[in-house]
Amino acid sequence: MTNERETGTRLDPKWDANGLITGVVTDAATGELLMVAHLNAEALALTQATGLAHFWSRIRWRLWKKGEESGNVLKVVELRIDCDQDALWISADAAGPACHTGARSCFYRIVENGVLLHDD
Amino acid sequence: MTNERETGTRLDPKWDANGLITGVVTDAATGELLMVAHLNAEALALTQATGLAHFWSRIRWRLWKKGEESGNVLKVVELRIDCDQDALWISADAAGPACHTGARSCFYRIVENGVLLHDD
Repeated sequence: MTNERETGTRLDPKWDANGLITGVVTDAATGELLMVAHLNAEALALTQATGLAHFWSRIRWRLWKKGEESGNVLKVVELRIDCDQDALWISADAAGPACHTGARSCFYRIVENGVLLHDD
Repeated sequence: MTNERETGTRLDPKWDANGLITGVVTDAATGELLMVAHLNAEALALTQATGLAHFWSRIRWRLWKKGEESGNVLKVVELRIDCDQDALWISADAAGPACHTGARSCFYRIVENGVLLHDD
């Protein structure tokens, strides 16, 4: 089941029906999962060119530089792509809270016995 | 922009048009990002009930217990959900390589200067 996309050295993202791949951001220092968002081709190109994480907002339907309003940019330390090239791992230095709620990470709630517990 | 889904204690996943949320799996011991896949309501329920990661395969169009064939199951250590409840963080003990290629992680290639470098 392997193929050139899985084994090769060519960046060949497998865009979904909306032209997007999944972006997973972790904190380069702590490894913590900070956020999950989506990238189109332009967001990926800008992320590579500028070294700052860019995404495509599925809600606002526009390109979005993370931190463009809050200042909490994500500086890329390393980019990795997965086997079938539909997910990008962005290891980053976070200038501030990654979540729009003000939390360090968007994953501030633990799922336990079917309910959510805040970790703070 | 906060609301009950973001601030509350009720698990209320924001399913996409295909009835899926994104699942991000990290190694509970090392923090390494292992894989990204998708869960429907049944996969989420089974993941919670059994303590083993289940997904919905968008290619095979069926429920899928990770490791059902390879034996490389993912034992859930902690589940977290993000602010808008469309992404689940599964921190897990991996019984073996998480990737179908045999790699420990699906993210075995670094994106650098537009090309992919294998990390092994």
